[in-house]
Amino acid sequence: MAEPLTHPTIENGWFMEKNTQWPGQAMSLKVEEILHTEKSKYQDVLVFQSSNYGNVLVLDNAIQATERDEFSYQEMITHLAMNSHPCPKKVLVIGGGDGGVLREVVKHECVEEATLVDIDEAVPRVSKKYLPNMSIGFEHPKVTVHIGDGFEFLKDKTNQYDVIITDSSDPEGPAGSLFGADFFKLLKNALTEKGVFSTQGECMWLHLPLIKKVMDFCKELYPRVEYAYTSIPTYPSGQIGHVMCCKDSEANLREPLRNFTSEQEDKLLRYYNSEIHKAAFVLPQFAKKVLYEIAAATASRRGYSTATSKNAGSFYYQYGTPLVKCIVLASATTLGFQLLWQHLEYQEYRDEADANVNKLEDRLKSLEEQQNKL
Amino acid sequence: MAEPLTHPTIENGWFMEKNTQWPGQAMSLKVEEILHTEKSKYQDVLVFQSSNYGNVLVLDNAIQATERDEFSYQEMITHLAMNSHPCPKKVLVIGGGDGGVLREVVKHECVEEATLVDIDEAVPRVSKKYLPNMSIGFEHPKVTVHIGDGFEFLKDKTNQYDVIITDSSDPEGPAGSLFGADFFKLLKNALTEKGVFSTQGECMWLHLPLIKKVMDFCKELYPRVEYAYTSIPTYPSGQIGHVMCCKDSEANLREPLRNFTSEQEDKLLRYYNSEIHKAAFVLPQFAKKVLYEIAAATASRRGYSTATSKNAGSFYYQYGTPLVKCIVLASATTLGFQLLWQHLEYQEYRDEADANVNKLEDRLKSLEEQQNKL
Repeated sequence: MAEPLTHPTIENGWFMEKNTQWPGQAMSLKVEEILHTEKSKYQDVLVFQSSNYGNVLVLDNAIQATERDEFSYQEMITHLAMNSHPCPKKVLVIGGGDGGVLREVVKHECVEEATLVDIDEAVPRVSKKYLPNMSIGFEHPKVTVHIGDGFEFLKDKTNQYDVIITDSSDPEGPAGSLFGADFFKLLKNALTEKGVFSTQGECMWLHLPLIKKVMDFCKELYPRVEYAYTSIPTYPSGQIGHVMCCKDSEANLREPLRNFTSEQEDKLLRYYNSEIHKAAFVLPQFAKKVLYEIAAATASRRGYSTATSKNAGSFYYQYGTPLVKCIVLASATTLGFQLLWQHLEYQEYRDEADANVNKLEDRLKSLEEQQNKL
Repeated sequence: MAEPLTHPTIENGWFMEKNTQWPGQAMSLKVEEILHTEKSKYQDVLVFQSSNYGNVLVLDNAIQATERDEFSYQEMITHLAMNSHPCPKKVLVIGGGDGGVLREVVKHECVEEATLVDIDEAVPRVSKKYLPNMSIGFEHPKVTVHIGDGFEFLKDKTNQYDVIITDSSDPEGPAGSLFGADFFKLLKNALTEKGVFSTQGECMWLHLPLIKKVMDFCKELYPRVEYAYTSIPTYPSGQIGHVMCCKDSEANLREPLRNFTSEQEDKLLRYYNSEIHKAAFVLPQFAKKVLYEIAAATASRRGYSTATSKNAGSFYYQYGTPLVKCIVLASATTLGFQLLWQHLEYQEYRDEADANVNKLEDRLKSLEEQQNKL
């Protein structure tokens, strides 16, 4: 009998998703059995059977899909884009090697060709074995699969695809090139006149500066750039977003151009419907400020310390208690975490962050002086 | 020097939120320092400083609030209800002992009295020490605090409160009585003519049968019953919901009756805004089916196996491959998990679940027979 498999992320029967891309937090899942471990040419591949989430695919220690909740991500990244095009006939999926996005793409009868390009043959291979309800997407007669680099694949493609879906892993790893400005130029060239794309666009709770950077690239290339999001328990912070762009300046990605019938929604879908299409673009205040109100966001980023201290000040005057010091310190601690994270993750924000710290220190000092006087 | 504190949920520097209410999953946070441990009269109380989420309050091994993301929950449970009333003057908060909901309630200038009733004095006490940005809510001159049982407190209150917010922990523990039919009758009696309440209404990804049960109680008592939800990384599955009811049959909870100005949204709020108020009620298909389409939901619950097998069947006919067996087995596995969970958690669903298993087995058998014939 073979030795049971082991993996460094699994201890005492639990998988913990520790990762420097979301420091200090780890979604953890109880493991029934490790089904597959492999170092492929590009990444660490792990499949385990969990106690409550079905089979789970993990690449480079990041959960890619669980059988229990994958539907929300696959449906949203696909149908948000597909229903924003009047009649998508040729569709390209970059990444998506588990087959789940293909499964959703071919639910649209207008599709004539769906092509998938994944860099790592290991992903379709293990998905066909362990994730049959996703990899069923590969079996459809309209589907063609290429194993190769999506970035390279796009280089000679002009005016070919009505919809492109980038279902990639996170930027640290083989998908790194799929988050850069050059990639979004290639996408534009490969799309047809009214072409639409959607991406795995990271999580607003964790990666707002990265999302903003990607949207800023895109705004220079496309007349319509939006950010939508989906709830999914097993992705970091329980949520994932999609950067969506369209070449048609008349298009409004926030309203579906085409709808499934109620009967189709009932039979074919578990997450997406025409109402949730619209709701997916409505952002909470903290994300809206950064991603959509550019002037305000810049001011807010540069002047964060001032704004925070101002609020603390107003509480102070309103309540007349010495709590202000605690609040300012708590604000400073929060700001400290944010700055630390930015320092580690985003070299380009360093100068600005330093300036913010200085401003905060100045402001703190002046508040303390005010307080001493009272 | 005192010994460093320890807690059974913290090992190797990480807190893991294992809990029978969400089996097989555990949000985990890196711990810098355990600040407080206590067995209060009602529950286990833990406060730790995390590496990336600020200070964290944990009751009976369930995260109640982290300094980094508490704002989304506190703002949504409060302002969804407050902005659904034309002019809330008297407000009652049941639970909410960290003070965060009070902090949000008093942002509405129309409020004349905000009363908080929490059963456990330990929660306000430790919050005042370790969560100053939440417990600042207690300092406001309009606020009164009672330590006592919310259920008992309500018994002699008639026509008194314009808005009631039940910010409770989960149903297993001291908050159990706040999820029963009798509680919602007391709430109705305590509310004024156009009174509105919102509750901590659990997570649609985990507790759909419980949410449905609570909404069913409420539908017998109130003309308007809705379910809204909020994204919050450190609650189980990254999301929490709110059951919301109104005594005014003309009211539409899905549209705010009152709005903050843009300037107020910018200065006072980090999650809530008037657009997200509306979006919070738009449910993904799987939850909409169960919570809003009663006839369809009942049919779907009773006929789940049939529907699943039917989809599998259509894939089979469409693709003409022997994958159907895998799909049916995967569906059966998924269904098995769901049924197991229901069995453990909800005694009253047992008979129905057994019937479903039988139907599934019959259907599986008949599909296998069909397949053998082909």
